[in-house]
Amino acid sequence: MELSAETSDRPRRRGREERQRAAPAAATRPQPRRPFLPTEAVSADQLEAIHAASLQVLEEIGIDVLHGEAKAILKAEGAHVDPSSDRVRFDRGLVESKIGLAPRSFTLHARNPARNVVLGGDYLAFGSVASAPNAADREGGRRPGNRRDYQNFLRLGQSLDAIHLWGGYPVEPADIHASVRHLDALQDMLTLSDKPIHAYSLGRERNLDAIEMARIARGIDQDTLEREPSLFTIINSSSPLRLDTPMMEGIIQMARRNQVTVLTPFTLAGAMAPVTLAGAVAQQNAEALAGLVLAQSVRPGSPFAYGGFTSNVDMKTGAPAFGTPEQMKAALVGGQLARRYGVPYRSSNTCAANTIDVQAAYESVFSLWGAVMGGVNLLMHGAGWMEGGLHASFEKMVIDADLLDMIANFLMPFRVDDDELALEAMREVGPGGHFFGCAHTQARYRTAFFAPMISDWRNYETWQEAGSPTGYDRANQLYKARLAAYEEPPMDPAIREELAAFVARRKEEGGAPTDF
Amino acid sequence: MELSAETSDRPRRRGREERQRAAPAAATRPQPRRPFLPTEAVSADQLEAIHAASLQVLEEIGIDVLHGEAKAILKAEGAHVDPSSDRVRFDRGLVESKIGLAPRSFTLHARNPARNVVLGGDYLAFGSVASAPNAADREGGRRPGNRRDYQNFLRLGQSLDAIHLWGGYPVEPADIHASVRHLDALQDMLTLSDKPIHAYSLGRERNLDAIEMARIARGIDQDTLEREPSLFTIINSSSPLRLDTPMMEGIIQMARRNQVTVLTPFTLAGAMAPVTLAGAVAQQNAEALAGLVLAQSVRPGSPFAYGGFTSNVDMKTGAPAFGTPEQMKAALVGGQLARRYGVPYRSSNTCAANTIDVQAAYESVFSLWGAVMGGVNLLMHGAGWMEGGLHASFEKMVIDADLLDMIANFLMPFRVDDDELALEAMREVGPGGHFFGCAHTQARYRTAFFAPMISDWRNYETWQEAGSPTGYDRANQLYKARLAAYEEPPMDPAIREELAAFVARRKEEGGAPTDF
Repeated sequence: MELSAETSDRPRRRGREERQRAAPAAATRPQPRRPFLPTEAVSADQLEAIHAASLQVLEEIGIDVLHGEAKAILKAEGAHVDPSSDRVRFDRGLVESKIGLAPRSFTLHARNPARNVVLGGDYLAFGSVASAPNAADREGGRRPGNRRDYQNFLRLGQSLDAIHLWGGYPVEPADIHASVRHLDALQDMLTLSDKPIHAYSLGRERNLDAIEMARIARGIDQDTLEREPSLFTIINSSSPLRLDTPMMEGIIQMARRNQVTVLTPFTLAGAMAPVTLAGAVAQQNAEALAGLVLAQSVRPGSPFAYGGFTSNVDMKTGAPAFGTPEQMKAALVGGQLARRYGVPYRSSNTCAANTIDVQAAYESVFSLWGAVMGGVNLLMHGAGWMEGGLHASFEKMVIDADLLDMIANFLMPFRVDDDELALEAMREVGPGGHFFGCAHTQARYRTAFFAPMISDWRNYETWQEAGSPTGYDRANQLYKARLAAYEEPPMDPAIREELAAFVARRKEEGGAPTDF
Repeated sequence: MELSAETSDRPRRRGREERQRAAPAAATRPQPRRPFLPTEAVSADQLEAIHAASLQVLEEIGIDVLHGEAKAILKAEGAHVDPSSDRVRFDRGLVESKIGLAPRSFTLHARNPARNVVLGGDYLAFGSVASAPNAADREGGRRPGNRRDYQNFLRLGQSLDAIHLWGGYPVEPADIHASVRHLDALQDMLTLSDKPIHAYSLGRERNLDAIEMARIARGIDQDTLEREPSLFTIINSSSPLRLDTPMMEGIIQMARRNQVTVLTPFTLAGAMAPVTLAGAVAQQNAEALAGLVLAQSVRPGSPFAYGGFTSNVDMKTGAPAFGTPEQMKAALVGGQLARRYGVPYRSSNTCAANTIDVQAAYESVFSLWGAVMGGVNLLMHGAGWMEGGLHASFEKMVIDADLLDMIANFLMPFRVDDDELALEAMREVGPGGHFFGCAHTQARYRTAFFAPMISDWRNYETWQEAGSPTGYDRANQLYKARLAAYEEPPMDPAIREELAAFVARRKEEGGAPTDF
């Protein structure tokens, strides 16, 4: 089978190789890697206690699985499926038997191979904001998501190297009819950008369309697609302890074709999860393990990532809170759990701020702190997320891209060798001198330090003469300049045509059902 | 001697105990402790290479020591003092012989014992912004430091529990004549606040006056003062590789009386230190070790902390940059070095922003990230620092206090026990339910989560109806409300009188020389 695919697809594959050579591979920077150990917020014993509590939840309380085929698959694996309800209980032996099957690390392929990312190990991949119902910038204010803003976010994100992949639609293009939205939106994503993509699990047809479009965009055959994961889906459980129809369908369709499933329970402590953090994380873990069991039952070894999204609500109002100390702690423990299960770890860059102010910045960096020190591999909502995910901001996207670039720089190994220790420079300069002019500095100063996009390091007087711009002002200017300078990444005309033809045909067929 | 002190001072000591009982000890919260291992950015071998490079610098290049007595002390210890210059070279044996003499951890005493802080181990103590030449708030703009603003910063900082100690004058009260400024300023600090204090090393008289005022404020005798460190001084080397007169004098006077010396080289990579980080840190380390040798030569076992302040300059303009990836990395390695030498570690909360914007927030949190994960014990400039230290901001002080509170909460141990794992609550709520109303939540919701001062978690519409306030707006309101509600901490009238009399006498004597 493998061999026949190799043979039959030779012409197409050669075409792909030619395109690869034409691709702007040199434009991208190496993917960041974590050079130090992640931070362990709980001891090995405590971690086992959380694991054990999750197993007890799965065994004694169980999970409501709102999907017939999923229940049948789980039943065949030995899960206890209540015939009179949707409740499924998992023996610990069943859960343990699925741990270790998923790969520790894998490559998520983009249509431009220079944009491929590794998910797992010590690698970090940064995703754009995703799934915001509203868009905002300073001039236009906050408005419902639409295709024009959606496309502009794609263009902006494509132009920012700090953003490695799309974690979904940066903003919902809600002016496209729901039956065909996924077709137009994915066509936009695959043509305006050449970075790895995400597909929403909103019914079988949408998953299958997305898989096919990813295959067409990469110019590969079905077998290659199954060998090379080319898109991912975020599966959110309906916490507490419920996995709903489209999400189960998404796991089944994606895992069956060896595409990437990221299971992220939506466990806001105090609302959809216990008010105590250990309880919220234990519930997160139970839900994630239930998804792991299903994915690995559908296809052992299919790529799977463990998502942690535990934060808390404001107990006075019930409003979700982000970038909190609780979220940071849960992010550390979530990473420990993902590593215990040997799968990549997903976390997020989040904030609850309504505008581009100090809160937006400090909540984001706190959430990044928890994620990065927790050992994140896939950072969702890395750039552009505002207001607890209710709006995507153009200015925030460039600010966050700068934060992500700073983190990538922070994660570059601390080099210690004779050149870096610079004893000769110290000898040359001597006590009381300065290093501006010495040869060691002159040879390195252009690239020695991180150069920010947003930070303004001018002195107060110069800054004041320039009109006292804030970071918000600079981000506003920068995002517009980036959009103005945007260039669409190259795409083989035959592929572009095939993609358009697929979209046209699926639209003619009526798109996908809207009663998912 | 110890015994006679005990006897002769009994009446005074009893008085002190009575005052202690009257003090509002319950008002303060436990000092934060780091519950996880600090992050190691370099391997043990790399750390030794940095250590070895520093020893080589001290041995081969040497340090310019601009102070006769310091040179004499070092010469007596075996250092090579060049008779025709200020150059002092340290054999590695001399340096190694002083490592391990200073305490790993000690208590810095406040006049209110409930405000004492531990410096060292896994404890963190947060200091206020210090030494800014300008003050700023939104209404008053940026203006030269003056006593009115200075006093208001003391009042504001006193009211914020997140700030544990004074790292110096929050803003320079430049309208007080330099000869008596330290007297008025320390009197203000010791009366408007009851938190631990810092004294500038700007000549012998100022050090001795500060030590005496700290003693008076605590109502203790000289022997107790020598047993109980009651103030600290920051010693900045004049990088590269130079220790100037008042700084050497400060080490001698403070160490001699067993008060705390914090040696912080001012090593901005690319300007006063090599453009390469390992070199900048090696130079920082050489300068810090030179200070350690002097302090431990003056008095073996005197409390000493290792300060890391390595950041970089903007190579385009030479402007100092803060909260950079380079600063974060240097902060991690600085912590490793401090732990190697077994002394507390000082780092900082810094930013280069000119106004309260996203940059001010993200640079601060990045610097906090480096400091906290680097194992900081003494965090300088914890609240209020702006513009690379050129102005102290009232709004930033409350914003930073909120950041520090978040960090303190983040550092609270992640508890894992039956109560926290909440299995019964999950059982009660079950799949598809919610946790708002369950007993487990009801018993805990009031104190379950961190409650911020600045963050606005209202939904967009409510926030908009409230006038779309930013974090800057909220901080502006909050700082004014705090100042309006400020109450001076209690002080024994006899002590207040003694302090005033001392200040009056020293002023009559002409204060301190201004040609330091």
